[in-house]
Amino acid sequence: MKIQEIKIIGITGIREIECGDNLAELIFQAAGKQGNSLEDGDILVVTQKIVSKAEGMIVDLSNVTPSKFAYDFSRKNDKDPRLVQLILDNSKNLIRLNENSGIIISETFHGFICANAGIDSSNIDGDRFVSLLPEDSDKSALIIRNNVELMGKNIAVIISDTFGRPWREGQVNFAIGVSGINPFIDYRGTNDFFGKELKATRIALADEIASASEIVMSKAAGIPAAIIRGHDIDHDDNHKLGESILREESKDLFR
Amino acid sequence: MKIQEIKIIGITGIREIECGDNLAELIFQAAGKQGNSLEDGDILVVTQKIVSKAEGMIVDLSNVTPSKFAYDFSRKNDKDPRLVQLILDNSKNLIRLNENSGIIISETFHGFICANAGIDSSNIDGDRFVSLLPEDSDKSALIIRNNVELMGKNIAVIISDTFGRPWREGQVNFAIGVSGINPFIDYRGTNDFFGKELKATRIALADEIASASEIVMSKAAGIPAAIIRGHDIDHDDNHKLGESILREESKDLFR
Repeated sequence: MKIQEIKIIGITGIREIECGDNLAELIFQAAGKQGNSLEDGDILVVTQKIVSKAEGMIVDLSNVTPSKFAYDFSRKNDKDPRLVQLILDNSKNLIRLNENSGIIISETFHGFICANAGIDSSNIDGDRFVSLLPEDSDKSALIIRNNVELMGKNIAVIISDTFGRPWREGQVNFAIGVSGINPFIDYRGTNDFFGKELKATRIALADEIASASEIVMSKAAGIPAAIIRGHDIDHDDNHKLGESILREESKDLFR
Repeated sequence: MKIQEIKIIGITGIREIECGDNLAELIFQAAGKQGNSLEDGDILVVTQKIVSKAEGMIVDLSNVTPSKFAYDFSRKNDKDPRLVQLILDNSKNLIRLNENSGIIISETFHGFICANAGIDSSNIDGDRFVSLLPEDSDKSALIIRNNVELMGKNIAVIISDTFGRPWREGQVNFAIGVSGINPFIDYRGTNDFFGKELKATRIALADEIASASEIVMSKAAGIPAAIIRGHDIDHDDNHKLGESILREESKDLFR
């Protein structure tokens, strides 16, 4: 049997990203400079934060006027009422609110259910600024992939973000956008080692790859991208992550 | 800056596991045979299924007598009423039941909240047999780690299992037991790239490593263990995963 072996390589030396930057080019150059040039068949994982910066999804909180609700909610916790307002403005549905802890779990307009509508302030210069999620992370992934293709390499791209989970402490990286890769490995209808049909298993590969990439990233040190090398990609040009990985409300038991 | 690079290596050629087997020895030999001998500093991820087999946690459904509740619940879906009974018997709390789909989300006696109390039938010989979770996966991890140490290598061990998630389709691998590694990277109180304090980020590293390992495992082909090589382990001999990664009920918004 062929030995399954993959490498996860953090990309260092990517300069601070500004609105309008060509991420593909900057990542491509940084990877080459550290001796890990992108290769055909690589999966490139890019964190939401630099995608949001490149796409101008940074908001100055001093331009946000909090409502009475946002003020009242903030009173018992140390959240900035302007941030609370921005979270509300970027939420389609509120799933859970907890005034004491300041926790807001909501459904974003993309359909992601996460804390603070995916808005956060880490690794952004200046105290007033926060990042929103990209408008369409599948599209962001496609643009990066196409721009890498212009430089001669055929890769897949995953945009990742850090999400908390119910019932378990700590956060993990999940995928919020994909291009060029089927985000699932579907074992349903195939047989296990003993020939029994696997009934329920469909692995959320894109989420697992996003989590794997986080192992080589470091919040403080600014490693906002990683290469997954050696995985045999199930190519898929048409997969919209939002339509496939987000569970339909009617099937969900936790809203 | 040092380039962060890790390797994930699937271990093939591990024979079918039986009750009482020394997993450490079998994995050690298989890894050596494929040319990937275990090294000091490796993280070894072992799937729950072979741990349960080695520890005799396989149940013959023909020994289970379903209650009226189990029969009634099974009527609308194609679940085996004996399996439903076994799930109930291995649950401390029921979190969500859905008669139409047969979904049972419960809290196990260990404190894990997952589908079917972690019981499943894949990759077990014979239609009547299912596996329960190990009684104490931290202890299982410690035993494997100690046995590898007897063979001269100092490693960390993570026991993984496949869990579904609310709101997102598909399953990912999470950690259910650890030994010799801090399951978290705690950034709280440290500063980001711009010197701002990171307030909320605590990465569930053990879960991310479990997910990463799944990328090289294959449900059908029987790759039940993987090596994570090149990660700078934050050694921790005393971490009980059950006590640290499972959120206290009072802090949980989704029960």
